[in-house]
Formats: sequence, C-alpha cells, structure tokens
Amino acid sequence: MTTVEWNEGKVRFIDQTCLPAEEVYVETDDYRVVAEAIRSLKIRGAPAIGVAAAFAILLAVGKRHFTTGQEMLEEVDHAVEVLSATRPTAVNLFSALRRMQRTVEGGENTGVPELFLRLAVEATVIYREDVESCRNIGSIGADLIPPGSSVLTHCNAGALATAGEGTALSVITTAARQGKIVRVYAGETRPHFQGARLTAWELLRQGIETVLITDSAVGSVLQQGRVQVVIVGADRIAANGDTANKIGTYPIAVLAARHRVPFYVAAPTSTFDVTMPDGAHIPIEERQPAEVTDIAGHRIAAEGVKVYAPVFDITPASLVNAIITEKGILHPPYPRSIAALFEQPAEEPKTP
Amino acid sequence: MTTVEWNEGKVRFIDQTCLPAEEVYVETDDYRVVAEAIRSLKIRGAPAIGVAAAFAILLAVGKRHFTTGQEMLEEVDHAVEVLSATRPTAVNLFSALRRMQRTVEGGENTGVPELFLRLAVEATVIYREDVESCRNIGSIGADLIPPGSSVLTHCNAGALATAGEGTALSVITTAARQGKIVRVYAGETRPHFQGARLTAWELLRQGIETVLITDSAVGSVLQQGRVQVVIVGADRIAANGDTANKIGTYPIAVLAARHRVPFYVAAPTSTFDVTMPDGAHIPIEERQPAEVTDIAGHRIAAEGVKVYAPVFDITPASLVNAIITEKGILHPPYPRSIAALFEQPAEEPKTP
Repeated sequence: MTTVEWNEGKVRFIDQTCLPAEEVYVETDDYRVVAEAIRSLKIRGAPAIGVAAAFAILLAVGKRHFTTGQEMLEEVDHAVEVLSATRPTAVNLFSALRRMQRTVEGGENTGVPELFLRLAVEATVIYREDVESCRNIGSIGADLIPPGSSVLTHCNAGALATAGEGTALSVITTAARQGKIVRVYAGETRPHFQGARLTAWELLRQGIETVLITDSAVGSVLQQGRVQVVIVGADRIAANGDTANKIGTYPIAVLAARHRVPFYVAAPTSTFDVTMPDGAHIPIEERQPAEVTDIAGHRIAAEGVKVYAPVFDITPASLVNAIITEKGILHPPYPRSIAALFEQPAEEPKTP
Repeated sequence: MTTVEWNEGKVRFIDQTCLPAEEVYVETDDYRVVAEAIRSLKIRGAPAIGVAAAFAILLAVGKRHFTTGQEMLEEVDHAVEVLSATRPTAVNLFSALRRMQRTVEGGENTGVPELFLRLAVEATVIYREDVESCRNIGSIGADLIPPGSSVLTHCNAGALATAGEGTALSVITTAARQGKIVRVYAGETRPHFQGARLTAWELLRQGIETVLITDSAVGSVLQQGRVQVVIVGADRIAANGDTANKIGTYPIAVLAARHRVPFYVAAPTSTFDVTMPDGAHIPIEERQPAEVTDIAGHRIAAEGVKVYAPVFDITPASLVNAIITEKGILHPPYPRSIAALFEQPAEEPKTP
C-alpha cells in the first residue's frame, strides 16, 4: 500500500475516501488534482499532506515549458497559493511549501533545468525525511509502551497519514512487533470515520486486534481501565506544546489525565510551528455542514439544523505527558524542550 | 406529535427510527409488538419506555379471555418477563412493570374485571404522572437557566423520550418560552444519532435555534465558552447520585467541570433506583456491533474489526451540580437529598 509517491513524472496516491471498501489509486500529472485531493480528504494526515504538496509543486513546474527562471518561480508561487488554500490546520502543508519555495529563492536568473533539479531534490528529501521520521518515531516511541498494553488512539496517524509507517501507529505497530500490544481501541472519528475506516484497516492488516468504539465511548474505556496508554498524532504543535489534532483529541486528553493514563503525542519535527506561541493562535478548520448531517449520501439530521463542524481541537500542553519525535522524546516543560529541538542543527556538519 | 398513548384498546406510538424523515405511527393490540419496539428503539427514552411497558401489560391482559384472576396474573408475569428482557439500563421500565404487578398482587381470587380495572388505572396513572412530571421539571428547572444562555444537551431527553414534554428538553423549552435561551448545541449522539435526528427535530419545531455538533466536538464547545449550561436526562440514578445516561454524557460532565459550566441532570423520581448504592452497580447495555460499523445499511468500518458498543455511561455524582426532579431540585450531598426525596410521602393526605 502506498499513500503518496512520485512515479515517473506523476504523483500516485491511494484515494482514502474509497477505503476500506476499495483500494483505488490515482495517478496524475496535474498539481490541481493533488490540491483537490487534499481538500476532499483523498489525501489526508498532516505529514502525507506535506509530502503530497511538495510533489505537487514539482508537477506544477514539470508540465510546462519555461524560458526563464523568473517564469518558473512565478508558477511555483502560483501553485503554492493554490495548495495553501486547501486545508488550514496541518502545518506540514505550509512548511513543505515553504521549503520548496526556499530552495529556488532568488533563482530568477538561474537556469530552468537547475531550478527543476533543486525542486526535485527538495521534494525527494521531504518524502524521504518523512519515511525516516516515521521509522524513528516508531522505535523511539515504542520504548514508552509497557508490555501487555492496550492502547487508545484517535483518527488515523498511520501509514495513510504519512509517506512512511505513520506516527502514533508507527509507535503502536513497532511495539506490537515487540510483543507488547494486547489490543488497540480506535475511536471511529466523526465526521469522517478515519478511525473506523483507516486505522482499523491498517491495524488489522498487521494482525493487531482492533476494537472500534464511538468517540463518545472514550470516557467509559478510560473509566473502566481498559487502556494503559493513549497515543495520537498531531496536525500542528505550538512553541509551548499545545497540540492541534483531530476533533475529539482534547476530550480524550482531559479524560486520560483524570484516569491517570499517559497521553502521548507522536509527530515529526515538521509538525511543530514555533511561530505559534500557543494553541490559541492555530487556525482551526471548519468543514461543510453536510459532512455532519449526511452520511454516504443519506441525510441523518433534521432539516433546518445549523452545524458547527470544527475538525480539529487544541489540547493544552499541560495534558500531554510526552511528545515523541524522530529526534527523541520531548518532556515538559515544553517551551524549553521544543526550543532545544529547534536550536540544535538539523544535520551534523559532515567531515569530508 | 404523540410519543406513546393508549387509544381505544390499542397502544399508539411514533416509530422514532423513521424520524426525522417520516412521521410513522404504529397502532397495536399486541404487547410483543411494543416489546419489540422498545428493543429496536422505535420507542426509546427512559420515561417513555416505562409508560409504553405499562400500556403493554394492559394489552397483554386485554386481548385474552381469562376465567380466573390466577390465570390473568400468570399472563401479567409472563408479559413482565418478556418486556423486562428488552433493555437493561433504564430503570423506568422495571419500576413501571413492578407497579403494574403490585397493583394486582395477591389477586388470584379477585375477579378478572376488577384486576383489569386496577391495571388500567395504574397504567393511566403512570402515563399521567409522566406528563405532569415533565411539566414540573420544566418549570422548576427553568429557574436554573440564566437569561441569555446557550445550552448543551446530549441524546434526546425531549417529548420523544417521555409521555409529556421531556425532561432536559422540557427545561430548555420552558426557559425558551421565558426568552432565556439563545441557542442549543445538540450532540449528534452516536451510534443512533438521537441528537441529530430527534432533539434537533423537536427543538426546531419549537422555533429554537439548534446547532448540531459531533460528540467529539463537546470539548471545543466548552473550551471556547460557547455554552453557559449543560443539561441532560438520565436512564437511572443511583442512591448516591451517580447517573447512567447515554454514552458520551460522562465525558461532557468531566469537560463541563473543567470549564466551570454547570452540569444538570433532569429526571423524574421514577428514574431513581435507590436499591443501587452507586453507579458501579447499574447494568450498562451493549448493542450489536453493526449499530456502530454500519449506517443506514452502508458499511463504514473495516471488515474484521471488533466493536465495544456500550450505549450508556456512568457520570459520578461529584460532577453533577444539581438534579432537577418534578418534586424539586436536588443538591449535593445526594445521598442525603435523594434519601429525603423518597422519605417524604408521595402525596399530601387530602382533607375531605
């Protein structure tokens, strides 16, 4: 299964809205198809959106003939604008687009082939970093999981949310390979059922016992001592550790704290946004009313009802016991541990 | 709109599984049809289930010819058994059935017409008490609602859950008539969408602005200060005030406490079960996996996933700011206020 990849001049991705009923792959050389796929949740999950956006920039410049670097950069800027307008909360989208822009910055007088090469390299690096990050998050995070654990997760922070093995689910599947996981409770994740459709599908493919619950049952699951660990992904983490993640995460964090169950966030460093001092500054996406009132084309709700449909919420840092990144585990106080994460050089200087 | 009523030898009820799309009424003289309607949620809501069960006993004995009181009592016992097996959590079912049995207790040698009369009177009293209780709960509870309030409720504790105007919704609609309600946030209430289908339908018919949210959004709604009051119904209240109500109530209570929003339970005295010392003793109904994995005949969840589907949870008394009954408002400490409620005589002795 491939969530999103570059394949001979095209972007290839699995249409997640068709899962679990069908595995439908889409191949396109049109970046607007990728933008639309992000908007309509065919491609979703913060890291996967970032990777897809980087590839989309490559499509945008790969399809047209440019005579000058200037022309190409204008096309990059235009595609960045289109892609930026798809979804507001996951920061990986914006950080990937910024990286793509930065790699060709000031290249107005640079040759077109050179600029294309830079973009191709950067997109590939973003992709490979995500694959590598997932692997590291898995092995680092698995150390936090005690043997014999049942785990609660929410939404889908798995392979389908990344270019690699996932974030929260990478921790769970790694711990499962170590024989430490009894079962996973997956919240169904209204309104889009990513837990019921995607997380359950992924975990069952790996032979991990998965128990589906309604989002409203998280209180009972924690109250009854059914899980020893909660682990979720993230769409954006502020400088103080406040975490935006799928709607319903905040209630789980509050309940986990009440029942003294550790609550962990797993996310690559690309999900941190240190320009945001705290969670109150993170834009929260609201989706269309029909996504709540209708299911599979079937009207559920009473006619005339208004809808408030935020699809992310903010979990205050005080409720997060640790943040698992590809570079190590962050502990409170997060303002300090997050700052330290971004002070260290991204790569060790290489000795030739 | 009539939730459940006695109509010329038959029970007439609205099939709530068809709402809000269609208003379908069912009339039956077969108590097993009523039992099946309770089991399949065509009739639901703790007080409505109690009333329907009382009428069902009347159907059970009204259809057959009995030569002795003994025979009739055996039929009552049999019908009580069938009806008791429908749903385990709402205590109103059992208390209504007990009242019906008690009214003919020791009547083996009493004439059949006299026993039928006693049952008919008792069922009518149960019905009328519920109508009256709803009205009193509304007017007593409305005093707790400050002017300009937005209110959060969960599931449906409205006219559709009772023979009258509802419990929690009676408070809300009464306060709305007093001009104190800005809007109501209704949790959609998975797995059966009673909030989206029934509460929204009822409130909109009364011209009250209703905003539908997923159950997972209750954290954001409370965190953002969008509501000033939470009010819900109950399916069973233990002697210490622990409250069984629709799954998702407990998370709301925890979040309301965190955000210092008062959390009220509205329920008639028939919903109290003082034989239960606390919530841990209340049986919690689990429904079939398909009720979570499938919606409107459409499979949502990945194949092979297990399901944990409790449809009620227990809110500890410590999170309940007040319990609104038809006899007055109960405050903590509940062991004392609930005991006092059941010590006082049900009716004042009448001076002739």
